[in-house]
Amino acid sequence: MKLHGYYRSTASWRVRIALNLKGLKTHHLTHHLRKGEQHAPDYLSCNPQGLVPTLELDDGTMLTQSLAIIEWLDETHPAQPLLPSDPLARAKVRSFAQVIACDTHPVQNLKVLARLRQLGLPEETVTAWAAWANTEGLGACEKLIAHEHGPFCFGATPTIADLCLIPQLFNARRFGVDVSAFPRLLETEAATKDIKAFADATPDQQHDAE
Amino acid sequence: MKLHGYYRSTASWRVRIALNLKGLKTHHLTHHLRKGEQHAPDYLSCNPQGLVPTLELDDGTMLTQSLAIIEWLDETHPAQPLLPSDPLARAKVRSFAQVIACDTHPVQNLKVLARLRQLGLPEETVTAWAAWANTEGLGACEKLIAHEHGPFCFGATPTIADLCLIPQLFNARRFGVDVSAFPRLLETEAATKDIKAFADATPDQQHDAE
Repeated sequence: MKLHGYYRSTASWRVRIALNLKGLKTHHLTHHLRKGEQHAPDYLSCNPQGLVPTLELDDGTMLTQSLAIIEWLDETHPAQPLLPSDPLARAKVRSFAQVIACDTHPVQNLKVLARLRQLGLPEETVTAWAAWANTEGLGACEKLIAHEHGPFCFGATPTIADLCLIPQLFNARRFGVDVSAFPRLLETEAATKDIKAFADATPDQQHDAE
Repeated sequence: MKLHGYYRSTASWRVRIALNLKGLKTHHLTHHLRKGEQHAPDYLSCNPQGLVPTLELDDGTMLTQSLAIIEWLDETHPAQPLLPSDPLARAKVRSFAQVIACDTHPVQNLKVLARLRQLGLPEETVTAWAAWANTEGLGACEKLIAHEHGPFCFGATPTIADLCLIPQLFNARRFGVDVSAFPRLLETEAATKDIKAFADATPDQQHDAE
C-alpha cells in the first residue's frame, strides 16, 4: 500500500496513526500542499478532490477520505480495533470523530483559508476564523467526553476519536487557541504521548517535514 | 425515538430518509435554526454543538452527527442495508458520503455563512461562497461514481451516499449552482423520486415547513 499525504495534513496524520496502530508498513508519497502539488492532473486522477490523504492499494484501487480509509483499515485488519463493538458506543466514537472531521477541520483547512484571503480579508481575520472553528469544535468535543472514562477519549484504548483529536489539537495551537480550556482533551493527549504509533505519526517525524 | 431537526437542515434530511427506509416511526421535534432555537440551553445539553439533527433514544441517550446516527440505525436495524457488505465497497460509499458531509455541507452551512456576513462581506459574496463549496464537492462526487453502475450512486439500492447526495443537490440549486454539469448525480436523483422514503423526507413534506 502507498499513502499519498503531506506531513502537516491533519487528515493524513489520522491515517498515519491508524496504520501504525495496526502495524502496517506503507510507502509514503508526499504532495506538497503549499506548492499546489495536490492539483496536478496525475494526482487528481487518484483523488478528484485534490486533497490528501489517498490510500493506494496494491491493485491500484484508490481510497479517499480519511475516516473512510480508517474504517476500511479497521474492517480488514481487525486486531487492535479502532471502534468499540457495541453499536451505541460506536455511534458515540464516530460522532466525536465527525465533530472534528466534518465540522472543524474542513472549515479551517488550507483551501478555505486561501479562499478567505482571496476575498481580501487580512491575515489576522483569517487566523481568527481558524481559531474560531477550532474553539467551537474542540469545545463541543470536551463536553461530549466529559463523563466518559479515560485516559483516552472513550476508555482504555485509542479509537478513531483519538486519531482525530490529536492532530486537531496541533492545529488549534497553530492558530493560537488556548487549549487549557479543554482539560479532558489534554488528558487524552497526554495518554497518547508514550505510544509509539502516535509519536511516529507526528509531522516532525515525517520524511517530508520542513 | 425522537428526531430533533429542522425541515430545511440537509443533515436532518439525511436521517429522515434513513428512518423512512428502515420503516422506523419517530416523533419529530423542530428547532428553528433561523431563530437560533438550536442555541437554547436545553438543546445544548442534548447537542453541545448546537446543531441538528440529534436522535433521542427511548432511554434518553442523545446521538449526534448525522452519519454516526445513520450508521447506528444501520447496525441496529439491518434490514434494507445502507452500506454494502464488502469492505472495499463500504469504503467507497463512505468516502462519497464524506465528500459531502465533511468537505461540502459544513463549509456552506448556516453557521459559516453567518460568520462570513459578520465579517462584512456582501450577500452576493456569501452566496458565491456557498455555490463554490457545492460546485467543488458535487464535482468530485460526479467523478467518484462515473464508473459505478446506477441507477443509485453505488448500484441497485440506495446507500448512505444517496442519503447525502439528494439533500445536497437541493442546497446546490438554492445557491444557484448549474447542476446540469453533474449528469450522473441527476440520474441518481431521478431514481429516488419515486421512492416514498425519499419523497416523504423532503423539506416541503415536514410539519415545520414554512
